[in-house]
Amino acid sequence: MRFFPEFGDDFLRLLESLEGKRIAVLGHLRPDADCLGSQVALCRLLMERGIEAVCVNFHPVPRALRLMVGDTPFFLADDFDAEGWTAVTVDCADIIRIGDYLREKFPHIYANIDHHISNPAYAERNLIDPTAAATGEVLAGLMFDLGLPVDVVSAQAMYVAIATDTGMFRYESITPRVFEIAAELLRRGASPSLTASWLFENEPFGKIELLRLFLESVQKSCDGRLCYGVLPLGCFSETGTTKEDAEGFVDYTRDVAGVDIGLVLEEYEPGKTKGSFRANSSGLRVDLLAIELGGGGHATAAGFNQPLSLKEFLPKVEAAVAEHLKQYDAGALLPVATST
Amino acid sequence: MRFFPEFGDDFLRLLESLEGKRIAVLGHLRPDADCLGSQVALCRLLMERGIEAVCVNFHPVPRALRLMVGDTPFFLADDFDAEGWTAVTVDCADIIRIGDYLREKFPHIYANIDHHISNPAYAERNLIDPTAAATGEVLAGLMFDLGLPVDVVSAQAMYVAIATDTGMFRYESITPRVFEIAAELLRRGASPSLTASWLFENEPFGKIELLRLFLESVQKSCDGRLCYGVLPLGCFSETGTTKEDAEGFVDYTRDVAGVDIGLVLEEYEPGKTKGSFRANSSGLRVDLLAIELGGGGHATAAGFNQPLSLKEFLPKVEAAVAEHLKQYDAGALLPVATST
Repeated sequence: MRFFPEFGDDFLRLLESLEGKRIAVLGHLRPDADCLGSQVALCRLLMERGIEAVCVNFHPVPRALRLMVGDTPFFLADDFDAEGWTAVTVDCADIIRIGDYLREKFPHIYANIDHHISNPAYAERNLIDPTAAATGEVLAGLMFDLGLPVDVVSAQAMYVAIATDTGMFRYESITPRVFEIAAELLRRGASPSLTASWLFENEPFGKIELLRLFLESVQKSCDGRLCYGVLPLGCFSETGTTKEDAEGFVDYTRDVAGVDIGLVLEEYEPGKTKGSFRANSSGLRVDLLAIELGGGGHATAAGFNQPLSLKEFLPKVEAAVAEHLKQYDAGALLPVATST
Repeated sequence: MRFFPEFGDDFLRLLESLEGKRIAVLGHLRPDADCLGSQVALCRLLMERGIEAVCVNFHPVPRALRLMVGDTPFFLADDFDAEGWTAVTVDCADIIRIGDYLREKFPHIYANIDHHISNPAYAERNLIDPTAAATGEVLAGLMFDLGLPVDVVSAQAMYVAIATDTGMFRYESITPRVFEIAAELLRRGASPSLTASWLFENEPFGKIELLRLFLESVQKSCDGRLCYGVLPLGCFSETGTTKEDAEGFVDYTRDVAGVDIGLVLEEYEPGKTKGSFRANSSGLRVDLLAIELGGGGHATAAGFNQPLSLKEFLPKVEAAVAEHLKQYDAGALLPVATST
């Protein structure tokens, strides 16, 4: 049985075409575990085949994922001279996702490996499978299909990629293939408990206080169908935490019984507020709501920025959600096929 | 390939021996999802084979798991006349786990299906595999191995059993077999996103306030190696929540960087305090710590009761943990093979 029978030949030809080149494996802005894990796996595979390869990102590897990259060569865009290097992107739904700085350095993208349905195939060679729950799933499946070597660092990195991009095996995007690939990654040395310890068991003590502050602000609105919480100005410095530590807080609002849409609002500078929506089903189309507020995203997860203080913006966002829910109730929102 | 080749014949003979009997599938006190999911799957399998079968528990099915049992017949011990029924336990590590009331009703246990390493094989027929991460894994694997029918209710119930008993796929107990069985359960209709919505997306609004109260109390002790939080007397009625809603709060204490042992303390009646330990590795043997305080449990998760107020008990537990960590540092605690 093969996991991605339709892409095996393409991937093998792509690998062959990279021989003799120097490969920069690029990830997206604010790289997440699927991006970084895919970079790790592809870079190590190329190196194993005798191809010179490095990973390049605009933003640094977040604290929780530093152990995941292991000894894989990672460079910040600022420190990297792109002259003579060929660019391959992973997990970048759009070329703008690598950031303006890297786009200038790499005006030509040779190959593009991804799982986002919205990916417009912007490279010379494109390998995009929107049926996969993670780019790490595509790479792992292809490496197993073709009998390519997967070392323990790559196995663990692709496992973390899949685990996080499926919300720790919780999203609609999960298929039997996801679990079969996870089983095979465990055989190659990936560890679910190590993954959990990296992702969840090394929290700064200040996060307890940050979460307490956030929960204190949580309120319901729109007849209990919107639930929102606030990260007040200065909360990170006050608690000795960073933005990273507030990731996932929106789930506390979304998980309340009866709530359709969860929302976190953060006044990150005086007079500037950003927000993050999470919906309980893709039919709620919070991407459209975010577009209306100057942002964008997925049907169940989307965000925006507003040049307003929290106080000024709050009544506006409540009104926008109320109107959006009215349209939803009237069946006026189109469903979408989604891939996160 | 078979998942449990060593148990297939035993299981088939057990099923044959149940023909013509009326079977009460018993679960343990305060049943969790592995217990209930295993009861659902075994009961439905027996019914499908024309065997009269029901599930019986001392405590009711918790709110979050009511949809999981579907139309499977569940009875409370109080409402059940045991005369003429044959008892089969699932997920009960010890016969005392069914509770005194059910023990009196069923002095003889015919069969015992479980995955706990400590299970003393108390029944006439015993099918215990401590290499499995969940009793639901044993049952699902055997049903697949033997080509027995698995309907969508059973598939979903066994999926929830496995997902929860592995801490949503996070524990050391996870093997490639866990993921392979999960893949097969998805093919039979189990849904990870439905599971998440049952378990996490239907929280009472009062839980936000309960968690806020709890986080306000969180402190570090023992040079930062113990982190504890308190559920004060009356906190559930004040916030309109129940004990169920505080499940998992101990993880907030355990997940702090540098912490070896997390602890939640609850003064549940004036002058009566109970506690729950979680350790970051099985070498920390919090089961021994709990035994010392009049309780017991697993190497990484254990609990106890004390006839003292929170205020009286707090210095005692801090001293006990400090002494225990000293022994741990000195290498004086024996490691154990564990199965949760």
